[in-house]
Formats: sequence, C-alpha cells, structure tokens
Amino acid sequence: MPGPLKITTPVDGETYSRITQFYAHQMQLLDERAAEEWADGFTEDGVFAQNVKPEPWTGRAVIAERMRAGMDRLATKDVQRRHWFGMVATERQDDETVLTRYYAMVYETPRGGRATTYLSTTGEDVLVLQDGQWRVKHRLITHDGT
Amino acid sequence: MPGPLKITTPVDGETYSRITQFYAHQMQLLDERAAEEWADGFTEDGVFAQNVKPEPWTGRAVIAERMRAGMDRLATKDVQRRHWFGMVATERQDDETVLTRYYAMVYETPRGGRATTYLSTTGEDVLVLQDGQWRVKHRLITHDGT
Amino acid sequence: MPGPLKITTPVDGETYSRITQFYAHQMQLLDERAAEEWADGFTEDGVFAQNVKPEPWTGRAVIAERMRAGMDRLATKDVQRRHWFGMVATERQDDETVLTRYYAMVYETPRGGRATTYLSTTGEDVLVLQDGQWRVKHRLITHDGT
Repeated sequence: MPGPLKITTPVDGETYSRITQFYAHQMQLLDERAAEEWADGFTEDGVFAQNVKPEPWTGRAVIAERMRAGMDRLATKDVQRRHWFGMVATERQDDETVLTRYYAMVYETPRGGRATTYLSTTGEDVLVLQDGQWRVKHRLITHDGT
Repeated sequence: MPGPLKITTPVDGETYSRITQFYAHQMQLLDERAAEEWADGFTEDGVFAQNVKPEPWTGRAVIAERMRAGMDRLATKDVQRRHWFGMVATERQDDETVLTRYYAMVYETPRGGRATTYLSTTGEDVLVLQDGQWRVKHRLITHDGT
Repeated sequence: MPGPLKITTPVDGETYSRITQFYAHQMQLLDERAAEEWADGFTEDGVFAQNVKPEPWTGRAVIAERMRAGMDRLATKDVQRRHWFGMVATERQDDETVLTRYYAMVYETPRGGRATTYLSTTGEDVLVLQDGQWRVKHRLITHDGT
C-alpha cells in the first residue's frame, strides 16, 4: 500500500457523484449476495486483489465465481454484512481513467443480535469509463491489522 | 425490502450533493433531539415506516410526536446517539421525485464510555422537492438481523 | 457545541465534492502518520481545538509538532486507526469561506485483531479557499460521552 494518492487533478463534482453512486450500488449488490451483478462492476479483464489472499482474482468470470463460492460459505453463518466505502480521494488519469483511494468498513449483524464492526480496510482502485458506466479495472483491498 | 434500486437515471452531482446535505442536516437534528425540526424533513403527509414497528407513522405531526416521545424515553439513558447515512444510491423518477436506497448506522456513546455500534439498517426513501427543499414523502427503514 | 448549522446557503455540488475529497485526503495522511502533510491542511494561523484538551493548538507549525508527538506516543501501541468524516453539512459564508458541521468516527484495529470503534465525535470547521485549495482555519472537535 503506497499511501495516500498524490492528488493533482481530483475529479469534478459530477464524476465524483457518479463514482460514489457506483460504489454504493456495487456494495449493495454484494450485501444482497448478487455475486454476478456485483462482478459486472469489474471490467471483463478486471482484477480483484486483497493483501490477505495469496493471489488476485483475474477476469470478471473468475471474480464472480470466487465471490459466489465465498457467499455460499457465508450463507452457513446467519449474518448480514454491510460494506461501507468512505473517505474517497480521487486522481484523474485521463478522460476515461480515475485512480481512487478510500476506506472500506464491513459491519456484521447476526440474526437477532447487535451490529458489530467486522473489518477495516483501505481500497485502491483503477476505474475506467465504459459506455457511460464506471467499472473497476483493478482493485486492491488492504486489511488493517495484517 | 426489494433489494438494490434498478438504476437507470442516477441524479446529477448537484442534486446528489443537496440530498447528501439534507440527510446530514436531518440526522444532526435528530441526534440533537430536535424532534420537530427533524420531522420538518418529511412532507406534511409523509410516512415513516420501520420493519420492526407494527405500523408506520403517518403525517408530519404524528411523526414529530412519536419521535418526541421516543426521545423522552431515550433521555433516561445517558447516551449520545449518532445516525450516519452512507452508500446512497439514487434513481430519478421525475423533476421533483427521487428514489434512494442507502445504509444507515447508529452509534452510541455512554457518558464517560466508549463509542459502540448500536444498529445497522437499510433505508429506502421517496424524496420530493418542495420550494427548493428535498423532503421525505416515504421512508422505510429495515433493521439488519430481524 | 452550538448544534446543527443554520443552513441558508449550502455549497454547490462542485464545492461539496472538493471539500469531501479534501477531508478524505487529509484524514488518509493522518492515518499514515504524515503529521506535517496533514498539518498543511490548516492555514498558517489555523487553530485545532478539541473539547477534551485544555487549550487549542494554534498555528500550523504548532499543530504539526503536537500531532507528531501524539503519533510518536501512538506508535508504541501496535494499532491502525482510521478517521472517517461523514454527514457533512455546509453553509457558505462568502466566496472563500465555508462553515461545516460533520460527524467523525475513529476506528482502531490492533495487529492481528478485529476492528473496533474507538471514538465518536462531531466536528465544526471554518474552511477557507487559498490558491484553489481548501484549508482549515478553525476546527473544533467535540467528543461524544464527555
């Protein structure tokens, strides 16, 4: 994790609101366990890396499949997870490419229980604009405490 | 809870910032226990529903009265609650109507104690623009773990 | 803490996205323990006050020095803190001055451990625009539970 972005050209307000809404929608799909729709937020050749995994997931089809398997395992625990992204900083690379760095918290509520913090992470994305829709070309999630 | 919005027309950046600031201001009023000012964020015929309540509160006057009663009960516990909205996705219906779906977390700090997570929920609003001000026509809050 | 801002002129979407990104970047610098770069987000005569401190830190140089000392003390605990700002309400004073009121949560993850909530606060800033960059002229952080 190379640290905060060197910001010289943050995105404009219009783009910022679109990226924010993309993140909101994509994480809501994840938390509803819609693995394939969530994976559609990656480019076809997209990469999803986490510092706690031995290797990245590469390609939308693989990303969908691996996430579906993770969701199936999670289904055996009767909990609701919620992924929050926040503190999103951006740096525009070109008209169709934006770098972001942000925090992502995961909360977990067991059936009949109280919400707890589950995980604190930092995310670093390369986003690209395709047919008017932002997608993730590369995402690196770095878990705190590791 | 029907799941994530089908998004075809997210609101523009200007509207997104206004809605975000409306949510911030309305929840700050709630957490300062300004029940009537908070209720002013609903339309006169507004509805506030929660999946854990047997029936919705209907009409701004009723909403204010019920929230005031809830705040009076809470005052016997010496805690500070903070309502955070985040991950706000939007779908524009028409010039004066926007649907939103978002996450809402409530944190609680006891006097002299440490902050804890209190509640994780999902919100679904129908917002309408009245005299330049966004207000809630219908809000459904669904609690996680229920 | 005088309570929620009296909002008559919230900032436009473009300004809102710049302030949001300024907050994101400044807090990412803090959490990477870049005290001097974080302090650069204050004006040279900036003030950083917290209700739990006997007196405010005045001037960017003092703010940097005191934060560096705090970070050095924190380094003896093997934890990662994350500062989240949210629920940002704004009121424009003039072309180069904006008042904000927001919530700030701090999360903490120990090495090898699970994320926890550490602190819930409310922030009130006077922001000024200098050479195209927003900076803090005055920040008051009020801790919940105090």
